[in-house]
Amino acid sequence: MDLVRGRRTELQKNLVLLGATGSIGTSTLDIVARFPDRFHVVGMGAGRNVRMALEQALRFRPRLVSVMRREDAEWLRSRVPDSIRVLHGDAGLMEVALIEEADLLISALVGAVGLKPTFEAIRAGRHIALANKETLVMAGALVMNEAHKRQVSIFPVDSEHSAILQCIMGHQQNEIRRILLTASGGPFLHTSKSRMKDIRPEDALVHPTWKMGSKITVDSSTLMNKGLEAIEAKWLFGIPIDAIDVHIHPQSIVHSLVEFCDGSVVAHLGLPDMRIPIAFALSYPERLNLKLPALDLFEVGRLSFEKPDFERFPCLGLALEAGRNGDSMAAVLNAANETAVSLFLASRIRFTDIARVIADTMAQHDPRPMHEISEVLEVDRWAREAAFQTAKKKD
Amino acid sequence: MDLVRGRRTELQKNLVLLGATGSIGTSTLDIVARFPDRFHVVGMGAGRNVRMALEQALRFRPRLVSVMRREDAEWLRSRVPDSIRVLHGDAGLMEVALIEEADLLISALVGAVGLKPTFEAIRAGRHIALANKETLVMAGALVMNEAHKRQVSIFPVDSEHSAILQCIMGHQQNEIRRILLTASGGPFLHTSKSRMKDIRPEDALVHPTWKMGSKITVDSSTLMNKGLEAIEAKWLFGIPIDAIDVHIHPQSIVHSLVEFCDGSVVAHLGLPDMRIPIAFALSYPERLNLKLPALDLFEVGRLSFEKPDFERFPCLGLALEAGRNGDSMAAVLNAANETAVSLFLASRIRFTDIARVIADTMAQHDPRPMHEISEVLEVDRWAREAAFQTAKKKD
Repeated sequence: MDLVRGRRTELQKNLVLLGATGSIGTSTLDIVARFPDRFHVVGMGAGRNVRMALEQALRFRPRLVSVMRREDAEWLRSRVPDSIRVLHGDAGLMEVALIEEADLLISALVGAVGLKPTFEAIRAGRHIALANKETLVMAGALVMNEAHKRQVSIFPVDSEHSAILQCIMGHQQNEIRRILLTASGGPFLHTSKSRMKDIRPEDALVHPTWKMGSKITVDSSTLMNKGLEAIEAKWLFGIPIDAIDVHIHPQSIVHSLVEFCDGSVVAHLGLPDMRIPIAFALSYPERLNLKLPALDLFEVGRLSFEKPDFERFPCLGLALEAGRNGDSMAAVLNAANETAVSLFLASRIRFTDIARVIADTMAQHDPRPMHEISEVLEVDRWAREAAFQTAKKKD
Repeated sequence: MDLVRGRRTELQKNLVLLGATGSIGTSTLDIVARFPDRFHVVGMGAGRNVRMALEQALRFRPRLVSVMRREDAEWLRSRVPDSIRVLHGDAGLMEVALIEEADLLISALVGAVGLKPTFEAIRAGRHIALANKETLVMAGALVMNEAHKRQVSIFPVDSEHSAILQCIMGHQQNEIRRILLTASGGPFLHTSKSRMKDIRPEDALVHPTWKMGSKITVDSSTLMNKGLEAIEAKWLFGIPIDAIDVHIHPQSIVHSLVEFCDGSVVAHLGLPDMRIPIAFALSYPERLNLKLPALDLFEVGRLSFEKPDFERFPCLGLALEAGRNGDSMAAVLNAANETAVSLFLASRIRFTDIARVIADTMAQHDPRPMHEISEVLEVDRWAREAAFQTAKKKD
């Protein structure tokens, strides 16, 4: 098989995968393994899960692998063939992100760390499959401007944004009237306001539909995740935030909908399997025959929709406000949220404090346009510190 | 306004409208009236509603108008300006169908009478907006073959088929795995089998969602309409009948869905307004800003899906069988159904006899391929007579 010998066939796309050992990364490699004639991994960036990185490197034979720590790189280097170069740290990650022969970079690192390599890959003209929300939430204007300038396509990997892309295929942007972004509502959809302050981390880490990392699972429980997705959708599809309506849809079967100027609404439905949006981002505009089980609407029976409760889920309103309020405010929101969620997971603040920490941090910031990634990272640092100090007062 | 003076601007599409005074016809003219810069009616074919035809002719100023009867043509001729030629009968209708300067023919005649002019317009290279089901049900292979040969596009006007077209925009045909055709279920969705024989015409003429003519309303109540639509979808989208699954969806909000090879399901939703699919057929692939009220999913609340009951609705199974069984059987089904429905509407047979008349007629026919429209019309005549005789025995 060509894949194992590390060669590329004519039709193959060369992939760089940042975040290879995470949930999106492993699902991406599952797709690559199913379609070895179509995809070849040339570079991989991983974090600290070096045993999994080793296994993946041996199986997919990329030219470059980068892990977070020097000692892990050394451990890995002694276990892979010489054809695989092993790097580490920020510089290693950047070298992987900028591999010359890459056609598409899958940006699946979690958190702010994904921003810089993704941005630099765009500047180098690589198309992007974007799973890292922070890239657009923190620096949407900068990133989209750069992508436009370099004629780079950004394919969403989030199931909601992939759904939207699938709904608007074949359409002009000016035909879109509204985006209806669906949300499962999370585990606290029917929890009363008075009981919310007693929610513990272990309660928040149970998501009704998707298995994901802990930070994004908490974000789903506060609906912040949906707010971040609204900001992401605003940038990806060039739609004002007020034309994006969040719909609570507990069955998580409809992944989002688009309303057009003629009154038509087109929706994307499916079983919750991240391989569908990942595969679509890899093969767009073509669809791969994934041989997954079919959605059975008779079994599903009913699909329901309700309005989100902005009072019980203030994070959603904060995110929409940040998305409306100029570039830097969304970066502040994102940083304050990351800080607050990690403090909540460490049982340092209450569930209901998450929104308060974010709101207080946002109140201390004057939104402004940003012209460089360094500015974005500065705002990010400031907001983390401000959020931390705000949280301490509540401690 | 250019429209009133009967001139054509650069961007205008010249339309021929067959069935101008019916429900689809008047909705089409509503779209034309809203977008006078985009559409110009050059020819109109009407039936016996000559007062409405007069009003339409005076408003839209086509070059040719044809009505069914000679005396109506004379009446009309004396009331319109000389710039409008008035014709009548089959020959008049055919002359309208073949107007040289037409870009698109809207085929919205009801019943078998629509087949011949539509077929001849395709042979003459006109694109077709098709509301006349019989064209494809009776002669799908012939019509699609001709359309392919002449590079003619056939745009569906039925809300379900328009929904499917909208769902597959931007896709390749080999990516389609299944079509999920939705049906309201009609007024007898929950009527017990034993009570069905007592259904009177006035019971069947109440459709829960759409206002339509009486024949199609009865077809909706027997689910024959959905069976005819499945046959139509088979031809329009080149999908085997067994890859078309009927889903009962009482809210009639989801107009149909398409399942793709990657497991994605794309759906079209909207308020029940025929102007949406009509406008799309006129302006494809563009969407017009119809300024219609938005679908409010919060108000709808829930969407439900259930399996059709083939035992209580045998017409659906008969139609799928005919669609599976070779060209001429669908023409027999259609003719037997038209005959049975008109006998039912005249209170000559029971509701439950409709399916029995069709089944008995189909049992008398050996399916075969058809090579000429004249063969189709011969099969049609034979089946009407056979159905009539069969029904008489049940009288």
